[in-house]
Amino acid sequence: MKTLVIIGHPELPDSSTQQFLKRAAELPSVTWHPVTAEPLNITAEQRLLRQADRIILQFPLYWYSAPAVLKNWLDQVLTRQFAYPEAAGALVGKELGIAVSLGSPARNFKAGAPEHFSVSQIMTPFQALAHKLKMVFLPTFVIDQFGYQTDAEKAKLLINYQRYLTQGDLDHFEAQADWLTTQFQSLIAQKPSEQKQQLTLILEQLKNNQADLNDLKTNLKMIQNMEDS
Amino acid sequence: MKTLVIIGHPELPDSSTQQFLKRAAELPSVTWHPVTAEPLNITAEQRLLRQADRIILQFPLYWYSAPAVLKNWLDQVLTRQFAYPEAAGALVGKELGIAVSLGSPARNFKAGAPEHFSVSQIMTPFQALAHKLKMVFLPTFVIDQFGYQTDAEKAKLLINYQRYLTQGDLDHFEAQADWLTTQFQSLIAQKPSEQKQQLTLILEQLKNNQADLNDLKTNLKMIQNMEDS
Repeated sequence: MKTLVIIGHPELPDSSTQQFLKRAAELPSVTWHPVTAEPLNITAEQRLLRQADRIILQFPLYWYSAPAVLKNWLDQVLTRQFAYPEAAGALVGKELGIAVSLGSPARNFKAGAPEHFSVSQIMTPFQALAHKLKMVFLPTFVIDQFGYQTDAEKAKLLINYQRYLTQGDLDHFEAQADWLTTQFQSLIAQKPSEQKQQLTLILEQLKNNQADLNDLKTNLKMIQNMEDS
Repeated sequence: MKTLVIIGHPELPDSSTQQFLKRAAELPSVTWHPVTAEPLNITAEQRLLRQADRIILQFPLYWYSAPAVLKNWLDQVLTRQFAYPEAAGALVGKELGIAVSLGSPARNFKAGAPEHFSVSQIMTPFQALAHKLKMVFLPTFVIDQFGYQTDAEKAKLLINYQRYLTQGDLDHFEAQADWLTTQFQSLIAQKPSEQKQQLTLILEQLKNNQADLNDLKTNLKMIQNMEDS
């Protein structure tokens, strides 16, 4: 699966959040693509979109929407001829995700809390876009006040962000375990041979644990079904 | 009441919708203010906002949001220092309206219909903006495929648009009648004296009809209350 990350940030070099995410996105199947205010080569931009399976729009929330630099990109690159399913329908079936960084705490985004609206409600225009273009809209990835995060929170953010970019099925627990196994395997491959054996044993142990866990879940489900009937 | 209409349209001179609305907005209390991609004088823009009681953001819907030219204006002009209620709070208590022109039929904007989301849902980011700045969010004014409208529909659009810009209380029937009376009076004032008497008689008749209508509504309400108790 190929992932294209389209970053819209008017002050990209100054953003510690974006620099962190950029390092996290240094993965073989991921293309990091910041957009600028300079005149766009529409054909080249559309070619990038065509090549991707998962498209992530990544930006800081500016007045509850994308910054102008990203809106300009959307307005210009997504021509009707290119994007409308009745025309070329170039994005039909692809995934659309939003990776948004928040300047105020994520807990504030709900009815009754200071921001009053949920992030999902605020993302409705992007959901409508995905619907119009027959894309699969992914759950929005929220980066919650990066500057205030502890090192442990940042480590967790890194893993979750990499999963958001590359994990096949974002909804399922089994897919998450598979994703972690794959990451671990590629990590082992980079290690000197004396460490390889030890790490491979750890990985086997993790896989066994995972198999046990899956068995337990299956049994639990059977018991629940018996109770229901 | 002073109204400021901020128009964000990348091809303003070519838009028959905007030309029509511009003529309709030629009213004493209304300032017509198109924004451009040229560098902004932030202080001057903020001064305009301070002077207004009702602020209308007017634009064609581009990918379920404002065109980039207007988003750029919002990103730059609404500085935290200027807009946040905890800072200068320059917009607290003012009204915020959205006048949006649609390229696809308004009836398509609901669950199950082609656009799937309502215009209100799509406008959530602007509603969140109004909430944040402690502004009063007005019902969105929808211009439904102007190019396909009949002359009668355009005449109705003109009146409703002028009401949207200038009527004090947009919710109430009585306020609408008052608004029409005021418009009619200023029309009479411009006519030659031989027509004035005749038009004044018509206006008096309309006012009497309005008074009768209000009486009928009061009686109806009383009867309903008796039935309920």
